[in-house]
Amino acid sequence: MLNLKTGKYEFKEPLYLESGRILSSYELVYETYGELNEDKSNVIVVCHALTGSHHAAGRYDGDSKNGWWDGLIGHGKGVDTNKYFVICVSILGSCYGSTSPLSMDESIGKEYRLNFPVLTISDVVKAQINLFKKLGIQKAHAVIGGSLGGMQALCFAIEFPEFAKKTIILASTYQSKPWAIAFNKIAIEAIRRDPEFKNGQYDESFIKQNGLNGLAYGRMAGHISFLSPNSMDDKFGRNYVETDGLYELFGRFQVDRYMEYNGFNFPKRFDPLSYLYIAKMMNIFDCTRHYDTLESALKHVKSQITLISFSGDMLFPPECMSEIHDAFCKMGRGAQSEYIEIKSDYGHDAFLVEIDKFDIYVKRALER
Amino acid sequence: MLNLKTGKYEFKEPLYLESGRILSSYELVYETYGELNEDKSNVIVVCHALTGSHHAAGRYDGDSKNGWWDGLIGHGKGVDTNKYFVICVSILGSCYGSTSPLSMDESIGKEYRLNFPVLTISDVVKAQINLFKKLGIQKAHAVIGGSLGGMQALCFAIEFPEFAKKTIILASTYQSKPWAIAFNKIAIEAIRRDPEFKNGQYDESFIKQNGLNGLAYGRMAGHISFLSPNSMDDKFGRNYVETDGLYELFGRFQVDRYMEYNGFNFPKRFDPLSYLYIAKMMNIFDCTRHYDTLESALKHVKSQITLISFSGDMLFPPECMSEIHDAFCKMGRGAQSEYIEIKSDYGHDAFLVEIDKFDIYVKRALER
Repeated sequence: MLNLKTGKYEFKEPLYLESGRILSSYELVYETYGELNEDKSNVIVVCHALTGSHHAAGRYDGDSKNGWWDGLIGHGKGVDTNKYFVICVSILGSCYGSTSPLSMDESIGKEYRLNFPVLTISDVVKAQINLFKKLGIQKAHAVIGGSLGGMQALCFAIEFPEFAKKTIILASTYQSKPWAIAFNKIAIEAIRRDPEFKNGQYDESFIKQNGLNGLAYGRMAGHISFLSPNSMDDKFGRNYVETDGLYELFGRFQVDRYMEYNGFNFPKRFDPLSYLYIAKMMNIFDCTRHYDTLESALKHVKSQITLISFSGDMLFPPECMSEIHDAFCKMGRGAQSEYIEIKSDYGHDAFLVEIDKFDIYVKRALER
Repeated sequence: MLNLKTGKYEFKEPLYLESGRILSSYELVYETYGELNEDKSNVIVVCHALTGSHHAAGRYDGDSKNGWWDGLIGHGKGVDTNKYFVICVSILGSCYGSTSPLSMDESIGKEYRLNFPVLTISDVVKAQINLFKKLGIQKAHAVIGGSLGGMQALCFAIEFPEFAKKTIILASTYQSKPWAIAFNKIAIEAIRRDPEFKNGQYDESFIKQNGLNGLAYGRMAGHISFLSPNSMDDKFGRNYVETDGLYELFGRFQVDRYMEYNGFNFPKRFDPLSYLYIAKMMNIFDCTRHYDTLESALKHVKSQITLISFSGDMLFPPECMSEIHDAFCKMGRGAQSEYIEIKSDYGHDAFLVEIDKFDIYVKRALER
């Protein structure tokens, strides 16, 4: 049984942010799957990626799609909801119900918009810890996440070393590198300069209906980084959509159609301000920021770490993950970390798509 | 002596295009370096890339930069102007003086704009052959080009097998793959949807002064594909431009500044319609298009082929080039082709930047 439940928690107390700024109050929405056991020892925290949400598994009536990690979470799956109580929280800043740039700044009675404070991965993790406490959860069996979710999982392990026994990180990195920052740059510039963005004061319902083109261009860049030359060769080749369009200036290849579809539909379901704030959060993520070396950042980690990378990942190539394992080895603590490289041509998206290639490693990490 | 000269030729006769359309008249601008010898046996044709021009070497009074391949072409250099007569033509469609979408369509007395015909690599090569004939040049010692220039060089070898004794192709491919097409897609969509583009009827002087933002986003995508994760790590790391900008939403990393500089300056020197037409030309390039296999396309080639790829090239990875050599080997004609992979972290840009790593191979190919 998946036993999908949703929840929302309103914090009346402030959240002190890494930047020095304060959210005087905030809300978090979340989903849970499975049942919390009596001694609360079966909690698994799932962290979502840049454009994900708390809706990780199951399906709502009327929806055409399951949650984004439904292949991994459920009855008898890699994260087995018969055994575990799974919780996934929409991060602060995102646009699916938790406090975001479109929320009211109660102190001035207006929406934050571009006055929303810059958030870090540490901030969104701290907020989740606060939520878990309110729910009576002091510890987790595991934290698991891919991409931006993997950054959160690593941050849980470093900043809250007593929290989770196990940490499973997929297709992620311990710091954003310039290659990833450059992809985000296209979105950032195309959003802020889009005439319809109006310096963040856009009409929300207009944008929801029409989508912001600037965000579409950024999303297209994102989709390039999510795939790889090989996965595109396999998926699209040089096939045309309209074979008679060869000599038409805008005649389309199948890859063009894929980019259009994914680029221009996305801005209808995702808010451009949220995208700016989460891209920023991703860009500034560097778990070594307050330390001299990666080893000194990882020194306090008590969790057992499982690192799963994908050979064809162009956004966070395997080296980004193996470096974390190498750092544990350098400290003479190689047994605390396990590094698995999955052979995949799928690119970064593999952590969402090729679940049958890695679910066994997740299961093993959780149960051993 | 470089002996830089420029020329322009006006063709009064029509050019029949691959698409079935016709350019009733057209012009080509070009530069030459060195001296044509008596028996006209020392000609080297240089082909430029997507945003290049006929200005391949030397410097004009008042300019701050040399031509784009100045490191390779000149006195005692890889392409030695003491020995060779070098010619580089601005391709049809580009915006540096040859016939382009901004030229007058004499038949209707208006600029072509979006009525300009789609051009192929074959078309722009055929136009160059026509020019060489007018200049009294029937044959070349060599044709050399990188990226889109390499596509032209390969096309010379296949479609005009008697023309050049040697063909040197760098950082290119025998067909555009979906990965490259996807990068171009960002530019194509961002240009055509930019409100200032006005369906191609933009005010030329306004665009020259301000640049079209849509083209800037596309160029930023281009610059990602020209570099590589490693080259970005080396060039930029995670260094900030303003160290106090860490918690500012638009606080910049050095890689952000690089993207801004290269993205937003480019549209002031390059026309968006030209970009659309040349991106299309690149996308549809496939030298196997009229053949069953790569081997049957290469069968007629008489030129000695030198293929130079760069290990870190993300746009046209080494496989794109080694496949051409493999095809010659499969035909039992391995001796006709030489494949050299240059170890480089620089990415696709290496063919413009790391000239000292490959000029010796160019010299050797020309002289042996």
